[in-house]
Amino acid sequence: MPVVRVPGFRAYAVHAGLKARQLDLALIASDKVASAAGVFTTSQVQGAPVLWTRKQIASGQVRGLVINAGNANVATGPKGSLDTRKMAKGLAKELHCPTNRVLVASTGVIGVPLPMTKVLKGIKSAAKGLNQGSLSRVARAMMTTDTVPKFESRRLTIDGKKITLVGLAKGSGMIEPNMATMLAFLLTDVSATPGYLRRLLGSVTKSTFNRVTIDAQTSTSDMALLLASEEAGNRRLTSRRSEGSEIFEESLLSICDSLARSIAKDGEGASKLLVVEVTGGPNTVQAERAGRLIANSMLVKTAVNGGDPNWGRIVQALGAGSVPMSTKRLTVAIGGITVFKLGVPAGSRQVSKAAEKMKKAEISLQVDLGRGRSSAQIYSCDLSREYVSINADYTT
Amino acid sequence: MPVVRVPGFRAYAVHAGLKARQLDLALIASDKVASAAGVFTTSQVQGAPVLWTRKQIASGQVRGLVINAGNANVATGPKGSLDTRKMAKGLAKELHCPTNRVLVASTGVIGVPLPMTKVLKGIKSAAKGLNQGSLSRVARAMMTTDTVPKFESRRLTIDGKKITLVGLAKGSGMIEPNMATMLAFLLTDVSATPGYLRRLLGSVTKSTFNRVTIDAQTSTSDMALLLASEEAGNRRLTSRRSEGSEIFEESLLSICDSLARSIAKDGEGASKLLVVEVTGGPNTVQAERAGRLIANSMLVKTAVNGGDPNWGRIVQALGAGSVPMSTKRLTVAIGGITVFKLGVPAGSRQVSKAAEKMKKAEISLQVDLGRGRSSAQIYSCDLSREYVSINADYTT
Repeated sequence: MPVVRVPGFRAYAVHAGLKARQLDLALIASDKVASAAGVFTTSQVQGAPVLWTRKQIASGQVRGLVINAGNANVATGPKGSLDTRKMAKGLAKELHCPTNRVLVASTGVIGVPLPMTKVLKGIKSAAKGLNQGSLSRVARAMMTTDTVPKFESRRLTIDGKKITLVGLAKGSGMIEPNMATMLAFLLTDVSATPGYLRRLLGSVTKSTFNRVTIDAQTSTSDMALLLASEEAGNRRLTSRRSEGSEIFEESLLSICDSLARSIAKDGEGASKLLVVEVTGGPNTVQAERAGRLIANSMLVKTAVNGGDPNWGRIVQALGAGSVPMSTKRLTVAIGGITVFKLGVPAGSRQVSKAAEKMKKAEISLQVDLGRGRSSAQIYSCDLSREYVSINADYTT
Repeated sequence: MPVVRVPGFRAYAVHAGLKARQLDLALIASDKVASAAGVFTTSQVQGAPVLWTRKQIASGQVRGLVINAGNANVATGPKGSLDTRKMAKGLAKELHCPTNRVLVASTGVIGVPLPMTKVLKGIKSAAKGLNQGSLSRVARAMMTTDTVPKFESRRLTIDGKKITLVGLAKGSGMIEPNMATMLAFLLTDVSATPGYLRRLLGSVTKSTFNRVTIDAQTSTSDMALLLASEEAGNRRLTSRRSEGSEIFEESLLSICDSLARSIAKDGEGASKLLVVEVTGGPNTVQAERAGRLIANSMLVKTAVNGGDPNWGRIVQALGAGSVPMSTKRLTVAIGGITVFKLGVPAGSRQVSKAAEKMKKAEISLQVDLGRGRSSAQIYSCDLSREYVSINADYTT
């Protein structure tokens, strides 16, 4: 059974009418001021909610969070900024706290003004349910084209105190987070300073959420927030050298890694999880970049969809990119089966074996650049007819 | 009626058995030494034929060209280089000329050794037909997933002499030429020096073939060759200031532009031609880059497929990229209908009008960055379920 409550936090979600018949508006409230940190999209076009939340979280002090699906409130002009502030104010009133202690996260269509009457009514009605709600209900309310909610929980002990850590996330299109992520919320009752949470979240995001790419399209609305109610009463974590930090970091990494994999696996129209494992890179940046060249190639993604061990496309995708490489040093494997070794094809028997591996629900591609000792892993998915169907007809 | 012969050149194509039942091997022969120039893929992984042809064309002197479809002879190890040389030698024998006067171009699957017995037999048999063949037959033999051959011809007069100019090209997947192109062959009887042809081809390619992107995947086999038999007898063109150069350049540009559009329109699975017109760029490089961000966005391409005027994805694709921009200066139009102006949505009436424009077979998107006077145009196509179908099952 997953843990759906974190001491110190209350949550609830309702159907406010932004989407047809589904939950589409959620609240998370902290009984006292929570210690908080966030990372955000690096897009040059940022949604009004991203701009608001980025600004308010700088204090490290948070009382509440309003989340809506169905409308991202992006590229909506000056009205968009006013609407975000009104949403924060709506929850602040219910919690009797200053407006700037409330964060806002919105996801959905771009360029359409929010129906504010519905939104504000939704916040009021959701606030009434805060005492009874669970975080798994919030995870459901965040979904757009996601087919399953993304929810993870861990229990750990620090300093003799029981600690709970819960993570919620949403995918599933317009996803190549860049120094930030799609929507992901991490709640815990651990005692920790905002500065500590900030450093930890930045580091963990880099190797988890930021390693996901569905369609190479960095969103305008990405954010990951880490909120700590500090109810657990452990000696406060202040730095990554604090006692207990290692185990907390491990749990956070594990939750974020699971959520990142879930997002990739549930990419729009995806039938397969694609894991690209790059080794032999001169440094991590280049290894990661090489992984993205492969994971973002429409030709590799369609081959994965068709279960086709067409390794020539992996070599082509690398060759076309800006990562220095040479075929003579390059080795490529599919599900551990070598198909190309140091410039020479491994032959048709190996390709037949690789074809078997391509039939699985989870496909791994191994690429050794032969240029050093750095490695990186990218989570992605196949490109299917369903991806096209979903996206050919999203607003209309 | 298109012109299918160019004085001084002979050509023929046969079915050599590389593909099922279609023409797949073609020869072009110049009666005397032709003046020649080429541009090639900038991929770090280059096919053996690209390496060979790039080296031989440096002399500017060419007698023949062997083209095959169905197998690109890329990533095939040392055997690949030997096979390319054997192909050149095969035609050189028939033409009684040195092997290094013969160029080779191959297109098709990567990583599979060429069936050389079939290829060499094909060259022999095609050579027998050289007196009777037409260039339109060659255009058909170059096709892989192309649905139509790409063929253009122009007649012009320079220095009182009738000049013929013919262009052949192939698409249609793994296409985002980068300082080079897919396969394109331009034949003319104009008298011109190799140096002149080289400068002209480089310049024309930049604004035509290099402005096409089907799937953001630069190929390992791109090349464009310009061969001049010099049969026309005009005063030899030596520089772009030579008399007659302007009209020749105009014709070459017009042919290459038409071929580029044809390639985009016939992109794998494409149902629509997409033309992205960027204005207001600080310079051409940034304007072109902005155009590519839009044309390569899987979300924009699927919206074009669905006829969905989802302009938010255009703004998002720009925001995610490295071209400096701000929504406040940005204006977006679809088929000339403004949908987003200087940071503010134009409203639902404009979007309805834009939806009508999205139903056409040719869709244009206009983006003004509001940052200068430079512009660029990119040719692309939609992303369809058929693209996935074609590429999910290409080798197997």
